[in-house]
Amino acid sequence: MSQNPVIVLVRPQLGENIGKAARAMLNFGLTELRLVAPRDGWPNASAGPAAAGADIVLADAQVFDTLAEAVADITHVYATTVRKRGVVKPVVTPAQAAGAIHIAQDRSAILFGAERSGLDSDELALARTIITVPINPEFGSLNLAQAVILCAYEWSKFQSLKSPPHTEVDPPSPQFELDGMIDQLFAMLEPKGYFLPEDRSLVTRRMLRTLLTKPGWSVQEVRTVRGVLTTLQRKPLS
Amino acid sequence: MSQNPVIVLVRPQLGENIGKAARAMLNFGLTELRLVAPRDGWPNASAGPAAAGADIVLADAQVFDTLAEAVADITHVYATTVRKRGVVKPVVTPAQAAGAIHIAQDRSAILFGAERSGLDSDELALARTIITVPINPEFGSLNLAQAVILCAYEWSKFQSLKSPPHTEVDPPSPQFELDGMIDQLFAMLEPKGYFLPEDRSLVTRRMLRTLLTKPGWSVQEVRTVRGVLTTLQRKPLS
Repeated sequence: MSQNPVIVLVRPQLGENIGKAARAMLNFGLTELRLVAPRDGWPNASAGPAAAGADIVLADAQVFDTLAEAVADITHVYATTVRKRGVVKPVVTPAQAAGAIHIAQDRSAILFGAERSGLDSDELALARTIITVPINPEFGSLNLAQAVILCAYEWSKFQSLKSPPHTEVDPPSPQFELDGMIDQLFAMLEPKGYFLPEDRSLVTRRMLRTLLTKPGWSVQEVRTVRGVLTTLQRKPLS
Repeated sequence: MSQNPVIVLVRPQLGENIGKAARAMLNFGLTELRLVAPRDGWPNASAGPAAAGADIVLADAQVFDTLAEAVADITHVYATTVRKRGVVKPVVTPAQAAGAIHIAQDRSAILFGAERSGLDSDELALARTIITVPINPEFGSLNLAQAVILCAYEWSKFQSLKSPPHTEVDPPSPQFELDGMIDQLFAMLEPKGYFLPEDRSLVTRRMLRTLLTKPGWSVQEVRTVRGVLTTLQRKPLS
């Protein structure tokens, strides 16, 4: 059984960013937050409002003095970095990390560094794998909550492997319903000379049929179009 | 050749959020931003600082009074929604939309609604496809910039891939051609009382618009339908 990864914020500076990270986590079903030496202590009054309702994540957050303690029970530590650091470790995308976390039997954590400075070399040394978001090389400016949301989002994709939330779209109408509609239109167009000259008539009919088959209208939609056609034959209201 | 999608913010409220959206876009290489009726006008002094350097996106942003004008040149409009709205349109994930945009020959736009309210029903009626982020059903709380970044991020993943050889199919007509056809039909139906009673008129118009947006008719096909409508108004040949 795969387990949800733990999100570890290392030396986060602003309570607001901790709250936003919690919100990003819960949006995609992650709930376990660990904080290493938050600059302004913990709890932090700015975190709650920024969490926008993800209070459970903040309430259950655990605080540690050092990163080593925070990841003591973790078997696979991933560290996020924006830039290459010349670190000799595997570098993966958030999607690749999500896949690996999903199939792993062990406990994973994803580390995010301080807002300005990121993770330092000693912190990176604790990780087995580096996650780097493939970003615009000319403008890489991800904030903390954005980095968290991209990782959480990718992880959530593997959770259900379900297709998108499904809105039931009515199936296309059976052919005979469509034929009825097309016949009605042809009968209206015929006396107006639409199919003249005669030798083009078949091609014109085929072209209209193709155009009206393309939508894949449902039974209800076909009936609506027939109602429109019927209306068009009425006399104007006086 | 696929083209970068246009990001359209509809009735955005806070300049700060416009700036954050611009930052999210540029992080993943998107640069074309359109604003529809921003609440506090444009330019907005709060946008710059929040863009964190993505000034070029803000400087090039175009402002429109109406959504119809903002998407007039677009052939495939995607609308983002958080909740189901009972809309009968295809619903896709950001990843699926990104894939479709990548292989399309035409010009796409992704709409994002106002911070509190999202897109309204008339705005959704303009779109051919709905994008919904598969989110925690018990805590869906994406802010504007987060919704933008997830779509931009997914789109950027396809950028580096080579497209397969392309089958030429006529692209859907730009929105303004479609609007012209719909206006023509409405003008014909109006005097026949199709939109009565008055209090159902808006819903009926929206329903017809949805039905006629669904086919993705090409410019040629839209013109054919207009020809059919014009013919129907003629007197019968004697």
